[in-house]
Amino acid sequence: MQKIIQLSTQNQNGLYDITKDVKKIVTESNVQTGLVNVYAQGATSAIMIQENWDDSVQRDVISLLRKLIPSGIWEHDAQDNNGDAHLKAGIVGPSETIPIINGKMGLSTWQNIFFCEFDGPRNNRSIVVTISSI
Amino acid sequence: MQKIIQLSTQNQNGLYDITKDVKKIVTESNVQTGLVNVYAQGATSAIMIQENWDDSVQRDVISLLRKLIPSGIWEHDAQDNNGDAHLKAGIVGPSETIPIINGKMGLSTWQNIFFCEFDGPRNNRSIVVTISSI
Amino acid sequence: MQKIIQLSTQNQNGLYDITKDVKKIVTESNVQTGLVNVYAQGATSAIMIQENWDDSVQRDVISLLRKLIPSGIWEHDAQDNNGDAHLKAGIVGPSETIPIINGKMGLSTWQNIFFCEFDGPRNNRSIVVTISSI
Repeated sequence: MQKIIQLSTQNQNGLYDITKDVKKIVTESNVQTGLVNVYAQGATSAIMIQENWDDSVQRDVISLLRKLIPSGIWEHDAQDNNGDAHLKAGIVGPSETIPIINGKMGLSTWQNIFFCEFDGPRNNRSIVVTISSI
Repeated sequence: MQKIIQLSTQNQNGLYDITKDVKKIVTESNVQTGLVNVYAQGATSAIMIQENWDDSVQRDVISLLRKLIPSGIWEHDAQDNNGDAHLKAGIVGPSETIPIINGKMGLSTWQNIFFCEFDGPRNNRSIVVTISSI
Repeated sequence: MQKIIQLSTQNQNGLYDITKDVKKIVTESNVQTGLVNVYAQGATSAIMIQENWDDSVQRDVISLLRKLIPSGIWEHDAQDNNGDAHLKAGIVGPSETIPIINGKMGLSTWQNIFFCEFDGPRNNRSIVVTISSI
């Protein structure tokens, strides 16, 4: 099974929890043992597995990336002023692949799946969810 | 085939070579051409492919991450004082997917699979190994 | 289907666009819905999804990694003087897994697949492309 999750983003940088959306697709697939690949279509976005106890870790992720990859100092900024967004996307990476165990994602208690926006706000971000049975 | 590797960790930060354990599962599976996904269940741990000639690169990984992501300066530290561990886990990522070629993992001579502990010591860390034939 | 892409690299650090080579293998496979895993065999190389509008982002990636992971200051440098290359490879990671949708890779307009060389020049770098149907 392969499905697309679509979402809009409200800020330039932000993490959006898509765990429930992915879970729903895994359940629909009826796959008991396998893998689910979650892929962000967008060269200024990414997928990160991260804690979701409260919003603090998500804000820390944005602070960290801003510190490591400041905006406004890149060669690519001469084109469209979003060099930092491309670099953040490249370092975090567009996808994660998660095991399916007994029909459920093998996430630990605190692992959630986040879409990372680095060049928002955007009206229409797409995430491809691909499920394979083994 | 899907199996769980379990291990205990001795230090707060440490890399543990699990290549032999994954190899054993790949051999047992009898898959000749395919993929093996190695997934760390834990929001303060990760999987990294890295050299294993001696322990120096592993110590360098820990030094680098400590330098880039210092402890004690994150908003999440107000909750449980391990903000740096979550950030390290998010940046390195919980999984790697490796090709199986002629029944063996397609690692190069110096590529080994490491479990990365960022919030140890822990008695019981779990890594899910999922093998798919193509 | 599983195939090897081979390439030579000209610089110590460089990004090489392999999107066309991977595309060709995906087309040959005739897989309509599935996943393609792209894996760099080499502990001082990596795979990154990144923009390819012009060369600026690729140069920015090299500048960023040089800034975050300077050369010549690592314990492993006592062995073979390439500690930074191993650390860059470990952080970026050796593989990416991309969905196949209607027989084509589900890359967005600006997403391209790059082989990252961190310890070149090398005569013979190998990248394993593994395609699975779902």
